[in-house]
Amino acid sequence: MENCRKWKFQGNEGLTTASSITIRGVRNMLMDNLNQDDPRVVVPLGHGDPSAFPSFRTTSVAEDGVVHALRSGQFNCYSSTVGILPARRAVAEYLSRDLPYKLSPDDIFMTIGCTQAIEVVLTVLAQPGANILLPRPGYPFYDARASHSCLEVRYFDLLPEKGWEVDLKAVEDLADENTVAMVIINPGNPCGNVFSYSHLKQVAETARKVGIMVIADEVYGHQIVESIKGYLNISSDPPTFIQAGVPHILSRTDDEFFSRIICVLREAADICDAKLKEIPCINCRNKPEGSMFVMAKLDLSLLDGIKNDIDFCLRLAKEESVIVLPGVAVGLKDWLRITFAVEPSSLKDGLSRIKAFCKRHAKR
Amino acid sequence: MENCRKWKFQGNEGLTTASSITIRGVRNMLMDNLNQDDPRVVVPLGHGDPSAFPSFRTTSVAEDGVVHALRSGQFNCYSSTVGILPARRAVAEYLSRDLPYKLSPDDIFMTIGCTQAIEVVLTVLAQPGANILLPRPGYPFYDARASHSCLEVRYFDLLPEKGWEVDLKAVEDLADENTVAMVIINPGNPCGNVFSYSHLKQVAETARKVGIMVIADEVYGHQIVESIKGYLNISSDPPTFIQAGVPHILSRTDDEFFSRIICVLREAADICDAKLKEIPCINCRNKPEGSMFVMAKLDLSLLDGIKNDIDFCLRLAKEESVIVLPGVAVGLKDWLRITFAVEPSSLKDGLSRIKAFCKRHAKR
Repeated sequence: MENCRKWKFQGNEGLTTASSITIRGVRNMLMDNLNQDDPRVVVPLGHGDPSAFPSFRTTSVAEDGVVHALRSGQFNCYSSTVGILPARRAVAEYLSRDLPYKLSPDDIFMTIGCTQAIEVVLTVLAQPGANILLPRPGYPFYDARASHSCLEVRYFDLLPEKGWEVDLKAVEDLADENTVAMVIINPGNPCGNVFSYSHLKQVAETARKVGIMVIADEVYGHQIVESIKGYLNISSDPPTFIQAGVPHILSRTDDEFFSRIICVLREAADICDAKLKEIPCINCRNKPEGSMFVMAKLDLSLLDGIKNDIDFCLRLAKEESVIVLPGVAVGLKDWLRITFAVEPSSLKDGLSRIKAFCKRHAKR
Repeated sequence: MENCRKWKFQGNEGLTTASSITIRGVRNMLMDNLNQDDPRVVVPLGHGDPSAFPSFRTTSVAEDGVVHALRSGQFNCYSSTVGILPARRAVAEYLSRDLPYKLSPDDIFMTIGCTQAIEVVLTVLAQPGANILLPRPGYPFYDARASHSCLEVRYFDLLPEKGWEVDLKAVEDLADENTVAMVIINPGNPCGNVFSYSHLKQVAETARKVGIMVIADEVYGHQIVESIKGYLNISSDPPTFIQAGVPHILSRTDDEFFSRIICVLREAADICDAKLKEIPCINCRNKPEGSMFVMAKLDLSLLDGIKNDIDFCLRLAKEESVIVLPGVAVGLKDWLRITFAVEPSSLKDGLSRIKAFCKRHAKR
């Protein structure tokens, strides 16, 4: 490649910027800071993926659904761009179970997980001059994709003193004629809260008043359906045989599976809440109600020589082999996002190490 | 949704334009034109997906690899953004088999099929003012993604009289200081040709001379590696358990599988070549050497009242229940792209119907 320096393409600065603020990026930085000589097992309380822990293993029904579809040889083909009909029908029926109306398969688009769902929705909404309202703290993948699509981002706060409810006044103040949508994440990532029915109603009323769509887990506005199809035409599809496993998975997974997982999570949330109460410089106002994260405020005035949340997390990784996500990665400086979806024994171990770390660095 | 008309988002025109020129879009239009009362089986000679035909079924080794990874429960986790190491290592070793040098796992990025690979590369290359050189005829997904990323497209011809070789003079004339890359598709889609070693060498020399990268199946420039990682950070990953099946698939699939498929394709190409010779208004200069397509020129002067290639294909769908892709969808007006990767009996049937159609519409 002796002629490389003559090449006209010299890297894409914009992309590097857009992708630098992801949780993955911050977590990779923390992992690089671990002390390789520490004989202890690393306790990962910074991730959002409990699948590696035995308590959180998925049901064999899910495996059976995919294996059966794969072995049939009928689903090695391309998918339709919106997803295959049996999968969309199964999802529509599943989501309609608790609704006063029925979703149609045409309301459903199969994506390669939430990452692509966010990519599709934000790409469709991104028009010249448009802006979108995002929660702070929030999930930074929204910021990265909006930035990549040149969609301006404006932030409304989630209020810790009100159980992380949306600052509705801020939503009204931020929205203008170029605002296309607002995002709510419920149950909350990273706050672990669950919005009450009455608060969700207020959010919907506010959005209607200012004329913007609400992007929530299952709710997309009717108008963007054609644009979504258009973008899916030039986007990747989920593997067809996995889609073909969806009807089996949704119809055969029994409630016992979910109640067992919820039971494990509740135990872990209790451990997390109790252990954090023993650490003076980490204040967790709200016990988590959902998701698998809790946001805790760092009181730096009680610590000696620790500059901010990133400094705290880098040293914690190095000294205690514990990974916790600095709040700045989700939009809240000098907070911590702690995952409790790990094996309970590992969670206890990790929180004990955090306690020891804080005690060692406490101001005298 | 009574307040819909007040909503600020009113659809995304740009996306509709970007996605309208895909092969999928044209094929959907043809499918809609089929005569529902025709009792004959539809012969699909317009697609690029032979997986539905028994002769083209994949090997059980591929199923085994995925099933084993799925049943292990070890790969339900998130993938790293560039792909898991065992998969990248297996692909690097596989691709290095016939090379004078060795690829490293770090040269490999796992994507959700070629669709995402093209998306990633074009997104990374798209900088303000940049342009890219694409072959005509070509694969219109490149055009759609380039248009979506505001990457200017310039076309060089593939020359039918030279076995669909690249017009190298055109490449030199088109390239300027904002040209970042050229695309070659080899074996050719839609032309079915295979470039000779000496022609590939000429392409490489031309690209080096004008200072642009060549985007080919396995060849990416060293410089864009960091930008690719950046974009993969904000992009979807292939399902982890499928990636985990890759080492098994690549190491256990025997050559007999490929030689059997090639034998079926060769027989189909021969049928296609012989049958098309019997149709005066369809001229196929080059017998296909690779891929699963052949480009054939339509001589409209021999037909009565047929306006162009789209008109030909729409009437063929309606009157004979045969789907063939109009050349305009791949950049060549009044040509046809015919797929021969179907069951041989079905291919014969379809070509006979095309012959009957052309005879019926021939000028007296």
